[in-house]
Amino acid sequence: MTTFTAINLIKRPTGGPINASLFEVVKKEMPTVEPGQILVKQNYMSLDPAMFGWMSPDTNSYIPPVALGEVMRSSGIGEVIVSNHPDFTVGDRVMGMMGWQEYCLSDGKGLNKVTASLPDQGILSVFALPGLTATQGLFNVGKPKKGETLIVTGAAGSVGSIVGQLAKAEGLRVIGVVGNQEKADWIVNELGFDAAINYKSNDLDAQLAVAAPNGIDLFFENTGGPIQHLIFDRINAHGRVVVCGLIADYDNEVPELSPSWMNIIKRRITIQGFTMPDHFHQVPELLEKLTPYVLAGKIKHRAHVLEGLTSAIEGLNLFSEGENKGKLIVKI
Amino acid sequence: MTTFTAINLIKRPTGGPINASLFEVVKKEMPTVEPGQILVKQNYMSLDPAMFGWMSPDTNSYIPPVALGEVMRSSGIGEVIVSNHPDFTVGDRVMGMMGWQEYCLSDGKGLNKVTASLPDQGILSVFALPGLTATQGLFNVGKPKKGETLIVTGAAGSVGSIVGQLAKAEGLRVIGVVGNQEKADWIVNELGFDAAINYKSNDLDAQLAVAAPNGIDLFFENTGGPIQHLIFDRINAHGRVVVCGLIADYDNEVPELSPSWMNIIKRRITIQGFTMPDHFHQVPELLEKLTPYVLAGKIKHRAHVLEGLTSAIEGLNLFSEGENKGKLIVKI
Repeated sequence: MTTFTAINLIKRPTGGPINASLFEVVKKEMPTVEPGQILVKQNYMSLDPAMFGWMSPDTNSYIPPVALGEVMRSSGIGEVIVSNHPDFTVGDRVMGMMGWQEYCLSDGKGLNKVTASLPDQGILSVFALPGLTATQGLFNVGKPKKGETLIVTGAAGSVGSIVGQLAKAEGLRVIGVVGNQEKADWIVNELGFDAAINYKSNDLDAQLAVAAPNGIDLFFENTGGPIQHLIFDRINAHGRVVVCGLIADYDNEVPELSPSWMNIIKRRITIQGFTMPDHFHQVPELLEKLTPYVLAGKIKHRAHVLEGLTSAIEGLNLFSEGENKGKLIVKI
Repeated sequence: MTTFTAINLIKRPTGGPINASLFEVVKKEMPTVEPGQILVKQNYMSLDPAMFGWMSPDTNSYIPPVALGEVMRSSGIGEVIVSNHPDFTVGDRVMGMMGWQEYCLSDGKGLNKVTASLPDQGILSVFALPGLTATQGLFNVGKPKKGETLIVTGAAGSVGSIVGQLAKAEGLRVIGVVGNQEKADWIVNELGFDAAINYKSNDLDAQLAVAAPNGIDLFFENTGGPIQHLIFDRINAHGRVVVCGLIADYDNEVPELSPSWMNIIKRRITIQGFTMPDHFHQVPELLEKLTPYVLAGKIKHRAHVLEGLTSAIEGLNLFSEGENKGKLIVKI
């Protein structure tokens, strides 16, 4: 094989579903591996909501947008097939930012060797961005305390499902907000959440009252959307809101209605946004925190696997449609 | 004198200006001072925006509302005229929650002796609730850093004027938002703010651009109101929003439009509400922090003094009208 497939971003999304016109699928020549470099064959890559941010032009964002004409950014897992680098040998299993392409030439920076015995899909579901994000957001931002009540939106998603399970393991009451009955059943029956609420129901406030009889201490916000305001009204004094993602807003220019600002004062609420690129230097300690829960069997996961590199394009819409069942992964 | 005047809250406000129908002015008998008690003659009392909260029925508030039929809550300064308490002697100058009344019977709890040489009005303006609130909010919540840009709303008010001066003393660029030209002139010419913006102007965004060429790192929110959203749009990465008061919302049931939630993530903004009752145990350390600035002449203040106990009732409306010039104080 002398060429491989890659997908470049050529246009920025302007709202509405993601489609093929934003990308070009190109053939690239297999590169020469210079001294200090490795060539990785990527086996699986991760699709993440953060990609909507990476495609957007916002200059004040936490990470520069993907430049037009360049390979779309993503994390993935693969195998070193050529090494001219002293720290890597052929056959090493590595994880890191490899982009939407079949092969990745790298100087090794930002690639980490994978030693855990989970299969590739499990690694991307638990130990990659979602698990790190859940661990950072729950423990370091949210500061959960045993006996508190946590509510997490996008609860069947890659981050939300781990947040809820970690919180359960810590002794919190955990409520998950999801978009359909299948997800509700999964988080309660399989993951052990105390309650699930379908945000498409008509009696949301009554359901919240039943699910959170003692109010809400910690709100892990992954999605945005109208239920946010009902949740805010039930946040207890000294409540914390961890703002991790707002899927519902990604293709929506209309600002959300706010929580009651008076409540922010009266209940001394803290709202904190965070993104993982600020915390990449903490990855070793985050993994150290997360791993015991995984080894103890406390973190179940499921992957929603799409087939083939180009399936990534339309696959992104599964986030805004809420149709992904578990961690979205592309098998290359 | 065998009776004195007190003002009881008898009805809760339901929006609109505060008026006499919410209160009853009563004559009370001078009490017997039992062992362990003192009688204080109150000389000046403080009017504070927090009173709107104290009058409201919200059960989830940080401090129980004033019960109907009881003396309206307030802090004040006065002199011990009878003491049956080992820690107080006649003539002691004391400060604390004494309520809307000429005399206050107390067991001494929550009353602190005043030793600073400032006159009564200065004590209530700088060392009472406003100064403590400014010190707690700016340093412990806002965590200012030299060279950053701070914007404070209600900048000519009792809290805002101290926040701005403390921040200037710490080496920040300081912008104050006010409601008229007189206040704008005062904070720039007398208090040394770098810029003032009248929120009633038409070109707010352009004024913000000039006043904050490097964006805003710290937003001390005392008032609420539409300028909030323009400020949010200029908050830098890792910006902090200290939510201290929202005068503009106190008699307004309509929720504010929100900041961009996407910005909370992208710029990793922290929004934190706080109220002083959580921090009363820290008063000694807050005074220790504040006092050197006052002694160094860095904290100028002005009091807006109303005459007579009953002037407090209509006086509260000066907050929502933005007509108070400095700390509102009632001379009893």
